Amino acid sequence: MAQKQIPDIVVARLPLYLRSLQHMAQEGRKVTSSQELGERLGISAAQIRKDLSQFGEFGKQGTGYNIGYLTEQLQKILNIDHDWDLAIVGAGDIGSAVARYRGFANRGFSVKMIFDNDPQKIGDQIGSFVVRDVADMVSDIQEAGIKIAMIAVPATVAQQVANVLVKAGIKAILNYAPISINVPQNVHVQHTDPSTHLQRMTYYLE
Amino acid sequence: MAQKQIPDIVVARLPLYLRSLQHMAQEGRKVTSSQELGERLGISAAQIRKDLSQFGEFGKQGTGYNIGYLTEQLQKILNIDHDWDLAIVGAGDIGSAVARYRGFANRGFSVKMIFDNDPQKIGDQIGSFVVRDVADMVSDIQEAGIKIAMIAVPATVAQQVANVLVKAGIKAILNYAPISINVPQNVHVQHTDPSTHLQRMTYYLE
Repeated sequence: MAQKQIPDIVVARLPLYLRSLQHMAQEGRKVTSSQELGERLGISAAQIRKDLSQFGEFGKQGTGYNIGYLTEQLQKILNIDHDWDLAIVGAGDIGSAVARYRGFANRGFSVKMIFDNDPQKIGDQIGSFVVRDVADMVSDIQEAGIKIAMIAVPATVAQQVANVLVKAGIKAILNYAPISINVPQNVHVQHTDPSTHLQRMTYYLE
Repeated sequence: MAQKQIPDIVVARLPLYLRSLQHMAQEGRKVTSSQELGERLGISAAQIRKDLSQFGEFGKQGTGYNIGYLTEQLQKILNIDHDWDLAIVGAGDIGSAVARYRGFANRGFSVKMIFDNDPQKIGDQIGSFVVRDVADMVSDIQEAGIKIAMIAVPATVAQQVANVLVKAGIKAILNYAPISINVPQNVHVQHTDPSTHLQRMTYYLE
């Protein structure tokens, strides 16, 4: 869906709004407010109203937001009104944990395959997956039309893996390796590294 | 170390600078520049110079940054010139992967204990740890003087666990549960949820 240019920092908050709405729906709730969302998320109600107003009119003054409707709209905005298939590279502890992770259900994602280069691991069963040979990665990913991958390999080979993924047509990478990877401008990368998350907090500790 | 008020978005970039510097040091490098750091990180050289200048003078015009010196200074600024002990709550796939994770070495952190409430898991060996009973969490954490914890439990119990951690004196929480948790203002929280990371990218995909 085509949109005007929205700051990425706003885009980054939409998944948090959606996640809270989904929790409320699970609690059997039908209607919420920017105040309540704000309290759950530690974000001001004004910020939430401002963010959402960039995408349309989702609530009426005084009656709040219909949780089902706003959930559906946010799913459309985030392009997760259908599921995206995922490939995982690296069948170590982190990759295996992600392959078995049940938290993708209802969030727009579905793991389809996991790769490794270790002959000891190739062919192993992890959850419902058989570990595939990284040598087949480009053809397997292209054949399946997968556009999103997660990198869970050592830092030393993460860039090399990213290069192969780009060649395979991957357009978004979630990188668990503790190193920054470089990709072409039309490929999106998010990094997740527990040490950098923690260091951002130790700054504030005595 | 006391500092003037620095925007959190700047603080968030310091761990990335530090991580790149540590990779360069591993490569045997001695000197770098804001240009080179910027290319590795996809951040402009001007931004890096501006960020670092908020904390002092770390390089000389034309000669760049001494990697060893800047590494040491950033470690001091981020309060990781000594290691912080970590407690993990939840001995499922994610908690176990984090307990076995070797990537904390040299990053300022050291896992010391892991807890679960499942009698089937309590007493199990995970890496070098024996899973402890969550019932002993407050006393164990207080006795060890641990200030940082990671939550890797289901979303439904994450807030309850956070409340107990705060009671135990924890001042920083890295939350792997896919739900926002609320803590007192003097406690820091970072969230990491693969689905929200991925949704931030699918927004941009066709």
